[in-house]
Amino acid sequence: MEVAIVGGGAAGMTAASRIKALKPEWNVRVFEASSYVSHAPCGIPYAIEFDFPTERLMYYKPEFFVKKRGIDVHLNSKVVKVKRGSLVVNENGEEKEYEWDKILIATGASPRVPPIDGVDLENVFTVDLPPIVDRIKRAVAEAENVVIVGAGYIGVEMAEAFSSIGKKVTLIGKYDYPLPKFDREIGEIVRREVEKRVDYKVEKVVAIEGKDKVERVITDKNEHRADVVILATGVKPNVELAEQIGAELGKSGAIKTNEFMETTVENVYAAGDCAECINLITGKPSWIPLAPTANKMGYVAGVNMSGQRLEFPGVVGSQITKFYDLEIGRTGLTEREAKAEGFNVKSAFIEAHTKVPYYPNPKRVYIKAVKDVDTNRILGAQIVGYEDVAMRVNVFALAIQAGFTTKDVFFSDLVYAPPFTPIWDPVIVTARVLRF
Amino acid sequence: MEVAIVGGGAAGMTAASRIKALKPEWNVRVFEASSYVSHAPCGIPYAIEFDFPTERLMYYKPEFFVKKRGIDVHLNSKVVKVKRGSLVVNENGEEKEYEWDKILIATGASPRVPPIDGVDLENVFTVDLPPIVDRIKRAVAEAENVVIVGAGYIGVEMAEAFSSIGKKVTLIGKYDYPLPKFDREIGEIVRREVEKRVDYKVEKVVAIEGKDKVERVITDKNEHRADVVILATGVKPNVELAEQIGAELGKSGAIKTNEFMETTVENVYAAGDCAECINLITGKPSWIPLAPTANKMGYVAGVNMSGQRLEFPGVVGSQITKFYDLEIGRTGLTEREAKAEGFNVKSAFIEAHTKVPYYPNPKRVYIKAVKDVDTNRILGAQIVGYEDVAMRVNVFALAIQAGFTTKDVFFSDLVYAPPFTPIWDPVIVTARVLRF
Repeated sequence: MEVAIVGGGAAGMTAASRIKALKPEWNVRVFEASSYVSHAPCGIPYAIEFDFPTERLMYYKPEFFVKKRGIDVHLNSKVVKVKRGSLVVNENGEEKEYEWDKILIATGASPRVPPIDGVDLENVFTVDLPPIVDRIKRAVAEAENVVIVGAGYIGVEMAEAFSSIGKKVTLIGKYDYPLPKFDREIGEIVRREVEKRVDYKVEKVVAIEGKDKVERVITDKNEHRADVVILATGVKPNVELAEQIGAELGKSGAIKTNEFMETTVENVYAAGDCAECINLITGKPSWIPLAPTANKMGYVAGVNMSGQRLEFPGVVGSQITKFYDLEIGRTGLTEREAKAEGFNVKSAFIEAHTKVPYYPNPKRVYIKAVKDVDTNRILGAQIVGYEDVAMRVNVFALAIQAGFTTKDVFFSDLVYAPPFTPIWDPVIVTARVLRF
Repeated sequence: MEVAIVGGGAAGMTAASRIKALKPEWNVRVFEASSYVSHAPCGIPYAIEFDFPTERLMYYKPEFFVKKRGIDVHLNSKVVKVKRGSLVVNENGEEKEYEWDKILIATGASPRVPPIDGVDLENVFTVDLPPIVDRIKRAVAEAENVVIVGAGYIGVEMAEAFSSIGKKVTLIGKYDYPLPKFDREIGEIVRREVEKRVDYKVEKVVAIEGKDKVERVITDKNEHRADVVILATGVKPNVELAEQIGAELGKSGAIKTNEFMETTVENVYAAGDCAECINLITGKPSWIPLAPTANKMGYVAGVNMSGQRLEFPGVVGSQITKFYDLEIGRTGLTEREAKAEGFNVKSAFIEAHTKVPYYPNPKRVYIKAVKDVDTNRILGAQIVGYEDVAMRVNVFALAIQAGFTTKDVFFSDLVYAPPFTPIWDPVIVTARVLRF
């Protein structure tokens, strides 16, 4: 059996590994356009902040997959055409054709580039794959002013990175608070923290200017000096190859899949940031391109491609980031999203401490949670704070996965000891405020 | 309506507050034997370690309950007799009788004292209520050697406290690792950490000796110099008053209650460390005296005493402590307990890091988890590590509460970002190792 895997990121390598574990005799080829496999683009801001070698953003080296797992890894191999039963690859400049019986599209997502002048100037970057890190580091070494366009996760993380290495950072967002996928109560806390370190501007970027190198960013209101510009205005799924072979796309624009990670074309699977999966709260397909989901999709695709059956149940959309000491996470739906989905919503917003009052150094935490009034089910939670945000988002994530009501959460048996939490954990207080 | 609440700890004050919130016109009397209400005995080790004023171990002062919540708080008031419809209190030396229509027994638990000679010597302490703190602090100020008898949670926490303020600590346990309610894989990691700081001895204490003050602890194998001795050999529920009025006890020796916190006697409720509640895994009554459960039992008792109906679903037994930087937690059943309950058990033990490999300063974590082979349900998890143990125990706690299988846990949508966790969270790795 000939298996082709297009893309050597999280989903692709997980699928390849699973197939070789279950079907060691099958021929599994991975085609990866870059020189990295199993890469960690989410680590790019930290490679800049902590200045570690970019190679560390590869979880496993290609040789590991070749030697230990028997996978045929083709690096610098860009798939240019997928046909029924075969594909064409440009391998280090040379076109080759390979046959396949089953294929996995794991082509990931790419940065969106805003349609303005100047995006091609030197020292204007998008945050894509690890090889960009060394170029950014070289450019920023001599830079004084860094302008980041876009205040989503990548924008905020890059703002921390550049600010922490001593650059003057301007972060330009479209909305009056950064991380606009959070509700306002949370976003305003983020904004206050961001403004302690960087210049946050709510402006519309209209052009980027400079001779060869970038010199300034022009907005509807201002002109910002810029030695380096980072474009972080979102990502789009890489669906060209899927479309070539006739796989349908979903409403999100990502590849439509079923719970077995099958596309609408037989023997063609999709997984990772290019593919949709089910949102467990709405029951609808959603596109939330994140690494853990990509890994699990790859795992499920690998199992199913090997002839076993495993369903991917879906996600609740758990996410986290930080800006310096402020941790910011969410799971499920925001109030805005829940209303847009037609739920009859009640929300609660609480402020609490992370420890009993007598234990040294308690930190502040803020929770906004949303329930469905008709069923009392928890629909989502957003948390910002200076400690243990991941813990409490995860508790809500499990609660939402389980379909828990506010009463179930109130009675959840969370750990307590003075060094760890208050006796009434803020999660439980939130459930009580939401009523049951 | 006359309501009597015997005991002003977590359960008693929560119940009293609930009743006054729901029935402001009812007369709610709390009888507390000490001068503290709403106290935090779990903070005693930290009051010694960090030397803060003992009053801080009171969450709210008595005046708060009197003035803000309209509760009639009787301090230094030891209930000596409970009869049908009335009780007798020794209030500051004077006996008084009060009538009640409904009564809550919230008498808590007390330290067990081993049946050996010398337990009454000066500078031999049990760890009971906050007022003990000042006496221990005075005694230990001049002490060089502290011997702790008993290596459960309180023993280990007191060992940290005394060791951190520069005392030479001998911790004497019955079993070959401290915290014997954990399985061996976990206990041995705890033992190694404990032995870095204190002298851990597996010995049987046969006597405590000294002239007036304690001077030494005699065991079956050794004689240990001791200027201060802490007896931490477990606790027992305070059930005498419940027995007086005819309330049945459960197998554990604690007061039998139903899901409304009703005892077997009409209008007599029990809550907190003196009462049993349901273990959600076994479906059987259990006695796990811990503060969050006490609070919730008190809340439920208060609601039901007020004439509304609220069920306490039960607990999964989540617990946590730490010894210096090592965090130690569990939820559900250990392998030993699961086998004793008749489950067909498979267990997994994994070692992992708490962060992606490239992020600075990842810590080690060890997880042991147990599943029921017949249903694939997670039965329990024990975790030790240097970071985020509470987070992962809580994830398992929710999973167990929800009746999740290993597959459900594998697909749980936990947050990920490089500063927080590895892409495959150790919890998810554990579920994969347990198979589904």
